[in-house]
Amino acid sequence: MASFTAGNTRPVRLADIAKAAGVSHGTASNVFSRPEIVREEVRERVKAAAEAMGYAGPDPKGRLLRAGKVNAIGVATTEPLSYFFDDPFARVMMSGISEACDATGAGIALVSAGNQEKLAWNIQSALVDGFILFCIEGGPRLVELTRERKLPFVALELGSQDDTVSAIGVDNVAGARLAARHLCELGHRRFAVLSLAFVDDRTGLVSPEQVRAALYTGTRDRLAGYFEELSRVGVDTANVPVYETENDEASTWAGLETIFASAEPPTAILAMSDRIAMIAIEWLATRGIAVPRDVSIVGFDGVPDGALCEPALTTVAQPIAEIGRRAARRILDFDGMVRRETLDVELVVRASSRPPTRV
Amino acid sequence: MASFTAGNTRPVRLADIAKAAGVSHGTASNVFSRPEIVREEVRERVKAAAEAMGYAGPDPKGRLLRAGKVNAIGVATTEPLSYFFDDPFARVMMSGISEACDATGAGIALVSAGNQEKLAWNIQSALVDGFILFCIEGGPRLVELTRERKLPFVALELGSQDDTVSAIGVDNVAGARLAARHLCELGHRRFAVLSLAFVDDRTGLVSPEQVRAALYTGTRDRLAGYFEELSRVGVDTANVPVYETENDEASTWAGLETIFASAEPPTAILAMSDRIAMIAIEWLATRGIAVPRDVSIVGFDGVPDGALCEPALTTVAQPIAEIGRRAARRILDFDGMVRRETLDVELVVRASSRPPTRV
Repeated sequence: MASFTAGNTRPVRLADIAKAAGVSHGTASNVFSRPEIVREEVRERVKAAAEAMGYAGPDPKGRLLRAGKVNAIGVATTEPLSYFFDDPFARVMMSGISEACDATGAGIALVSAGNQEKLAWNIQSALVDGFILFCIEGGPRLVELTRERKLPFVALELGSQDDTVSAIGVDNVAGARLAARHLCELGHRRFAVLSLAFVDDRTGLVSPEQVRAALYTGTRDRLAGYFEELSRVGVDTANVPVYETENDEASTWAGLETIFASAEPPTAILAMSDRIAMIAIEWLATRGIAVPRDVSIVGFDGVPDGALCEPALTTVAQPIAEIGRRAARRILDFDGMVRRETLDVELVVRASSRPPTRV
Repeated sequence: MASFTAGNTRPVRLADIAKAAGVSHGTASNVFSRPEIVREEVRERVKAAAEAMGYAGPDPKGRLLRAGKVNAIGVATTEPLSYFFDDPFARVMMSGISEACDATGAGIALVSAGNQEKLAWNIQSALVDGFILFCIEGGPRLVELTRERKLPFVALELGSQDDTVSAIGVDNVAGARLAARHLCELGHRRFAVLSLAFVDDRTGLVSPEQVRAALYTGTRDRLAGYFEELSRVGVDTANVPVYETENDEASTWAGLETIFASAEPPTAILAMSDRIAMIAIEWLATRGIAVPRDVSIVGFDGVPDGALCEPALTTVAQPIAEIGRRAARRILDFDGMVRRETLDVELVVRASSRPPTRV
């Protein structure tokens, strides 16, 4: 128990050390905060006194208050914290953010807005030099709350065209077009879309009105990209089912049930995340529908698992780790500028897509 | 740029709000810190004034200094921060820690001691209510530094028998015995061990002297468990190669090169982590050595990837996420007690182990 309790004795203070070492309070303070300006002989004497009296150095909270720097980046999500470790896209993004922090010895504070009650408190109390926001749209007011902190922040999606928000992301329209064009060129004409969320807390087939009223612009942009390419080859997009999922098993399964109950099931599925695509491949296998023989499928993201699943997933790869590295460096090397940066995506063709065997 | 800079105007203070709302400073303060004790009418008036004047609430650093609580858990590793997102064992552990934090809305501060220069500062400056230490042995003095903070901490390994350190982990001897006994019962008598680190920054075949001088007691205990069982069936453990790896590809490959250069290669490999085992399965496949036909292999940890690899991995499963959840709750519900808790492991038999086809 000795290790946890400070005990009832008065803690040793810097003043005690200064007195014991026979130096001024200022000199003793410099030994801990700016040792390079203290003569070695004095430094050794103060350190010896500190060690003899069990003094651990200045209180970090007090020191931080003075310095105004925390040496940490806050990363905020509207999902629970477990998202950072369970979701394949989030993991790669965090790996990139970590690399940039490791390079300068900075720490990371993970903040979740999943618990709505504690959202404001979590954002207000995270002791960080700036925030990376995983998601800036939807219910929790991450941007507003972060702005109130008057700290730099960077969004990991370009989202709306609000040019007061610093952001790094990809061109979702262009990425989606790559996926759809690939399937069209293979000869597919019967499509279904498994989408990410257009709004919070809703799943099911979405209408054109619901698409227009989308809260999440990334989802809206990906669908726009898909539909542009499908229209170019004469597909009537009004007949293409778009099933809104929560990027999880239950809603993806429900979407597939709906899509494959049709008299004219699709020969190709456009999935807005690799996670949805991989869940779909598993579901299809259990129903005896072979990918790519019976159905082709193209994901979005380019997570490592997609290269290892069976069949390996064709996808639109984002430079996920690079987005994370750049976002972290924006905070660590903050220069006061708002920047909106668009990185390139690429189509990675693997085994999950091929020409249709039926029309 | 407006979103990042506080501007040059004096920030609005609580005193300004109190004056504008016609209440005392104490009442205005209560509206933000203990709203339940303020009459609704007064509360609304103060909030309206705050909103009109663009006041964001009390400074969180100041508030935390007063409250002494941060609502966050620090998680420290001697690895770089990217370890938390790249390593399969760490990810599951962090997922469990996150679940416990999500349940109470707490945040997580990730601290790395990988950058030796910044180690002390990182531990001293992390603003948390307690620490979970991934590794307490080896170079960086995590326990000493954490103790200096006088905050609760829990180690995620039982390590040495220092009963002043609160810890949660598994019985490594018992777990290793399960793995070795399984292979012995299948009829294997020719073994090799791919081990975790006994000390820092060393790889290669280890001698009995080096085993006795181990710094990492978990590694030493697992080897002791293996050798106990091998000895019981008459295997001369002096002839069993033990190759020390850094739990990565390069050192595991080097170990396999050494082991399979032998005139009498093993029919069974005991790997001290699932990561090592999965790397070994891949390496063996590239050499045309089939698992389990030519060589059986048993891992340690029970990470999810082990169930998905080809062939699926036989392993000693730790309740990784549960260890994480319990560790987090120890900090969140800290009661001042030192506790050492040992959770059960279990042998999970999958496809990577079977009787030897040669003797």
